[in-house]
Amino acid sequence: MVRAIMHGCNGAMGQVITNLIAEDPGIELVAGVDINTEQKNGYPVFASLAECDVEADVVIDFASAKATDALLAAMVEKKLPGVLCSTGLSEEQLEAVKEASTKVAILKSANMSLGINTLFKVLKMVTPILAEAGFDMEIVEKHHNRKLDAPSGTALALADVMNETMDNAYAYKFDRTQERKKRDKMEIGIQAVRGGTIVGEHEVIFAGTDEVITISHTAYSRAIFAKGAIAAAKYLAGKPAGYYDMKDVIG
Amino acid sequence: MVRAIMHGCNGAMGQVITNLIAEDPGIELVAGVDINTEQKNGYPVFASLAECDVEADVVIDFASAKATDALLAAMVEKKLPGVLCSTGLSEEQLEAVKEASTKVAILKSANMSLGINTLFKVLKMVTPILAEAGFDMEIVEKHHNRKLDAPSGTALALADVMNETMDNAYAYKFDRTQERKKRDKMEIGIQAVRGGTIVGEHEVIFAGTDEVITISHTAYSRAIFAKGAIAAAKYLAGKPAGYYDMKDVIG
Amino acid sequence: MVRAIMHGCNGAMGQVITNLIAEDPGIELVAGVDINTEQKNGYPVFASLAECDVEADVVIDFASAKATDALLAAMVEKKLPGVLCSTGLSEEQLEAVKEASTKVAILKSANMSLGINTLFKVLKMVTPILAEAGFDMEIVEKHHNRKLDAPSGTALALADVMNETMDNAYAYKFDRTQERKKRDKMEIGIQAVRGGTIVGEHEVIFAGTDEVITISHTAYSRAIFAKGAIAAAKYLAGKPAGYYDMKDVIG
Amino acid sequence: MVRAIMHGCNGAMGQVITNLIAEDPGIELVAGVDINTEQKNGYPVFASLAECDVEADVVIDFASAKATDALLAAMVEKKLPGVLCSTGLSEEQLEAVKEASTKVAILKSANMSLGINTLFKVLKMVTPILAEAGFDMEIVEKHHNRKLDAPSGTALALADVMNETMDNAYAYKFDRTQERKKRDKMEIGIQAVRGGTIVGEHEVIFAGTDEVITISHTAYSRAIFAKGAIAAAKYLAGKPAGYYDMKDVIG
Repeated sequence: MVRAIMHGCNGAMGQVITNLIAEDPGIELVAGVDINTEQKNGYPVFASLAECDVEADVVIDFASAKATDALLAAMVEKKLPGVLCSTGLSEEQLEAVKEASTKVAILKSANMSLGINTLFKVLKMVTPILAEAGFDMEIVEKHHNRKLDAPSGTALALADVMNETMDNAYAYKFDRTQERKKRDKMEIGIQAVRGGTIVGEHEVIFAGTDEVITISHTAYSRAIFAKGAIAAAKYLAGKPAGYYDMKDVIG
Repeated sequence: MVRAIMHGCNGAMGQVITNLIAEDPGIELVAGVDINTEQKNGYPVFASLAECDVEADVVIDFASAKATDALLAAMVEKKLPGVLCSTGLSEEQLEAVKEASTKVAILKSANMSLGINTLFKVLKMVTPILAEAGFDMEIVEKHHNRKLDAPSGTALALADVMNETMDNAYAYKFDRTQERKKRDKMEIGIQAVRGGTIVGEHEVIFAGTDEVITISHTAYSRAIFAKGAIAAAKYLAGKPAGYYDMKDVIG
Repeated sequence: MVRAIMHGCNGAMGQVITNLIAEDPGIELVAGVDINTEQKNGYPVFASLAECDVEADVVIDFASAKATDALLAAMVEKKLPGVLCSTGLSEEQLEAVKEASTKVAILKSANMSLGINTLFKVLKMVTPILAEAGFDMEIVEKHHNRKLDAPSGTALALADVMNETMDNAYAYKFDRTQERKKRDKMEIGIQAVRGGTIVGEHEVIFAGTDEVITISHTAYSRAIFAKGAIAAAKYLAGKPAGYYDMKDVIG
Repeated sequence: MVRAIMHGCNGAMGQVITNLIAEDPGIELVAGVDINTEQKNGYPVFASLAECDVEADVVIDFASAKATDALLAAMVEKKLPGVLCSTGLSEEQLEAVKEASTKVAILKSANMSLGINTLFKVLKMVTPILAEAGFDMEIVEKHHNRKLDAPSGTALALADVMNETMDNAYAYKFDRTQERKKRDKMEIGIQAVRGGTIVGEHEVIFAGTDEVITISHTAYSRAIFAKGAIAAAKYLAGKPAGYYDMKDVIG
């Protein structure tokens, strides 16, 4: 049984993970960390990881980027592996994460869902086959109307995975309406649709002569990121120092 | 039995229409017109409509815009209704078409397919209901990699139909990647995908709170435009002078 | 401001509606009814509608069918219009609902979502056009892996709406794998997909010669049924006796 | 330059291949074989492969199963590798093909398109990952209204590829409407949609908790089978005796 600490346990994702772990026989939460130290669930809650004296195998982080520096220091100090899911880290923080990973196991990923990471794996395999055969590659992503950025980070990560298999020879094309010309072979089109409360859809299109292959992922709730984090925590417990990725988890 | 003349009979679409009409008991081709006067099929071929002395009920035009002026003059002269499917008419020619339609029945449409014209009808009905209920509207169109223009004329026509039902209060948004902001309620996003030999797909998305309605049309060959032209010809035979549209044909 | 009573206020859907109404300036909950009379929210809770002495304009019902008889009696007694969303009513109860609707306004629908009811409206309009033009009609529905019935009641309701526009001339076809033959023109295929936690997807396919029109609805949460019930309650307040439907609400 | 003989050269697929090869600098047709020995194209046509005295590297077969016995005998005699695309072979003939493949290189596949064979490859990789993670697997295929069999042979082949990676532990489920019960974990649902002139669509659905991955293939014309046969012929030229598959071609 993997013993985990939930960092950011009283936030929305912390609670989602708490509830999912409660039903999972392979992992248990032995403590929580949160600036709000209210004990909402069956485990003790500490103001920081440094103060937490409960023994554990791994920490799962869904707190704010503000808490990341102290978290990394305590992870190194305790030799405690960690799954980092907080977003918006600064360049300095990303460097610090890499630095810390030379001393303790750290897993960090562009997208925590099993589904999207399986797509990464699929694209790595099929892109050389289909691009070689002359298929054109395009991505359409759909998200809710409050999302600020476009295209989504995941859409860019999908394009990057494809592009890396082809020596990064492709340029990304976001808008085709400003010029009157045929599609350039060496580009990957990325289109962003925004509307309603769509959680997140990503569609990768390989369009060839008289046939089209489409590989798509639809998210119905943010719980998929919680599930991915739990799978990652189970994987990371007991691992030696190093920088890990969800791709390692799905094998 | 409607008697039709095929204007541009030896071109690709002229031959598609010829073959479709051969299997249709409700209409027959009694003559063709083409700059290439070779008689490929069972009907006589003339160099111009003016020279054609075969009696008919309607003319179907899939020739080049260069032939449109002479065509319109002969239609008026013969009081022969016409389905005009040639594209790329100049502003002057479009005016001349309207002028001619005061003397003879003329049908001209942004898209000749029954399917797309049914979509126009559906959008006219549902847009006020769904826009009023707070649904966001987006369009994604997909075409082959040789298409020069983006978005497609049909995608714009679909957006126009929606916008007209809402007092043209919406702006069209082609690219969301150049700024970091939430979606503006009063816009219709239009995204263009290009790849392979895709004949033409149009997807209209109504995205609301926790539900999405999608209305889409997929074309598998250009024969659907031929079929639409034949349906239009049957409809137009015997009609009084006026400017008609595929929307009239589908009732 | 419409004053509503929530019947079944302490159930899952009752709480969803309570939360949605709290943010809606056009309607307020003045009382609740539930066999569990715990007061979870800001309104008083009664064991039955008969016992509730708070004045209101409409009652929204998401309780169990067991409570329907007493509910109908109290609605007639108080002349209180009601939106009935409980499912699994017996034939006798359905008769009693109709009977009661001669004395008080009652709204009851196969599916409460605005989106599905808009689909009903669209199908009523397009089916005669497309069926007449030779398009084949098929339905594919997708739901979670715990759903007991197949096809879904909504898929059947969609087929019924289409079939009614064609004098009920079509038969429904659920399985094509048991015989080796061409598709019969006078049938509507209905296919059920089951998997994961899919909330509910319905896809109506009109397949013609070289073109396909697809009209689809995706639900992301059961909140859409709550929203539909609230819209129905606003509509029903002040209406004379009669049997109403969501189709009336969407106009 | 690969020198190929077209077996069944005057049939529909034979002509499609002839036209495609005419534009391909890497392969040429040096002779044709057909019961109708009319010379439609630039190469000589023989009544049987045995009679053909033109030297070649490979034969492509799209003739009828009736011609397969003589074809195999001549291939072995001439030590000429062959791509066999004729369908409806008897059990005896399938045995004879295997027998012949011990003496000469033979390629035979459930589906000749590059796209579908890429799907086979993808499914082989992702099925163990996703099935292990609890995703349910379903297939929906769509074909034209004249197709006699359901589900399609390709849909079954897709299911077989998935099932083989899981020790064939899954049963196939074609109809869910005859019983009222939850989905059985150890089944793969396969649904067939029929309508219009749809060339062929296959959609493989992996439905998990709050996320769905869909991998789909759409064919726009039968030319994709011709293209696959040509790619196979280039691959097979010069290969030693053995039984090959399109999976070998795509690498």
